[in-house]
Amino acid sequence: MTTPTAAMLVIGDEILSGRTRDANMHFLAGELTKHGVPLIEARFVTDDHDRIVAAVNALRAAHDHVFTSGGIGPTHDDITADAIAAAFGVPIDVREDARAILASRYEAMGTELNEARLRMARIPDGATLIDNPISGAPGFTLGNVHVMAGVPSIFEAMVASVLPTIAGGPPLLSQSYRIDRGEGDIAAGLSALAKAHPGVSIGSYPFQQNGAFGSNIVIRGTDGAAVEAAMTALAREFPPRA
Amino acid sequence: MTTPTAAMLVIGDEILSGRTRDANMHFLAGELTKHGVPLIEARFVTDDHDRIVAAVNALRAAHDHVFTSGGIGPTHDDITADAIAAAFGVPIDVREDARAILASRYEAMGTELNEARLRMARIPDGATLIDNPISGAPGFTLGNVHVMAGVPSIFEAMVASVLPTIAGGPPLLSQSYRIDRGEGDIAAGLSALAKAHPGVSIGSYPFQQNGAFGSNIVIRGTDGAAVEAAMTALAREFPPRA
Repeated sequence: MTTPTAAMLVIGDEILSGRTRDANMHFLAGELTKHGVPLIEARFVTDDHDRIVAAVNALRAAHDHVFTSGGIGPTHDDITADAIAAAFGVPIDVREDARAILASRYEAMGTELNEARLRMARIPDGATLIDNPISGAPGFTLGNVHVMAGVPSIFEAMVASVLPTIAGGPPLLSQSYRIDRGEGDIAAGLSALAKAHPGVSIGSYPFQQNGAFGSNIVIRGTDGAAVEAAMTALAREFPPRA
Repeated sequence: MTTPTAAMLVIGDEILSGRTRDANMHFLAGELTKHGVPLIEARFVTDDHDRIVAAVNALRAAHDHVFTSGGIGPTHDDITADAIAAAFGVPIDVREDARAILASRYEAMGTELNEARLRMARIPDGATLIDNPISGAPGFTLGNVHVMAGVPSIFEAMVASVLPTIAGGPPLLSQSYRIDRGEGDIAAGLSALAKAHPGVSIGSYPFQQNGAFGSNIVIRGTDGAAVEAAMTALAREFPPRA
């Protein structure tokens, strides 16, 4: 069973200007890891048509799935849907099923479905809609690209809708081990361990606590027995200090 | 005065697996905005030599400055310095000035400068060192690529060392305005405003508070008078509700 891979594209000036701190990548990364579809690459671009088109085309060619975040609202700076259509070379227009979702939503709220709001019913030809239980306006999947909102609560709801529709790989298992020594002290032992256990990946993440250096070691792999064996060897090499 | 542009490359399995939430991009984005060197693009890649090389080469060709974060420690998964050397096609080896920094640092701490720690003195030919006041091991600048640590406190100190050495553009000014109406209500007015004020960028960021929708409007530009004029027009179009 080969492991499918995923990439993410985050769209928005507000993230790259430092005004807003993105939360969606961290959320998606965790969900994809659990689903067995590792996130291999992420890109952040400004609200620029050509940059979005180029990034979408590079990522969809290189990965099984691409998840985008941001730029599908009603305002003039929401240009993602048109950029996705351009990337695939397909027409885009208001689609009846999307319009109907918005119409019933706004009717229930006593809000006018004006021209700006109708922009959120613009869906590229051939796409399927992604449900938005929070605010109505749907996302969509076109080919292997899943186009979702940037507002975290809506993004998360859309991810919950999409993930069950895509085939997961074997879940990535991980175990962590804390060593109260600096990375420089344990690097040689870790390197030997990594060579002896090629079926797992062994990551070392340094930290500083109360002025002392320590390292969190994370062993990851899809074979539970291999992860377990590497973890046993790690604990033997670096036993907890009494 | 043309505005220089920047890109960022964040390196590390721990971010893309969802284990760690990156903090460095948000920090760098804010600092670069203040410095007048807008961050246009960011990429996140796993600890994979070929992916790092490809991303560095794409970004350094497209931007005036590239800032990297992560992968310059002493362990086997710290492969950034070698990947940067490969991207530039230059040799890399332990360099005397970097070795001397580490030697005096570890001597003061009573810690052995072992082979693993010496890896942190491996510097590509032609690079200049970036000071690390926190833990000694230097970053480096090679061409237009600034290679820094992933640990946020060290990353931030290195950014503070590097920024004064690079030419800033005109600082990007911004003003914000909160409108207690959903984006769909104000989109047409905003769009007209954006067309009438082409010298600034007008972003709209929706929020939800106590069940009601609102929009934060951010006007950005390097010409203070133009930002001011657009903000005046915005406030006239959408006066605060009594």
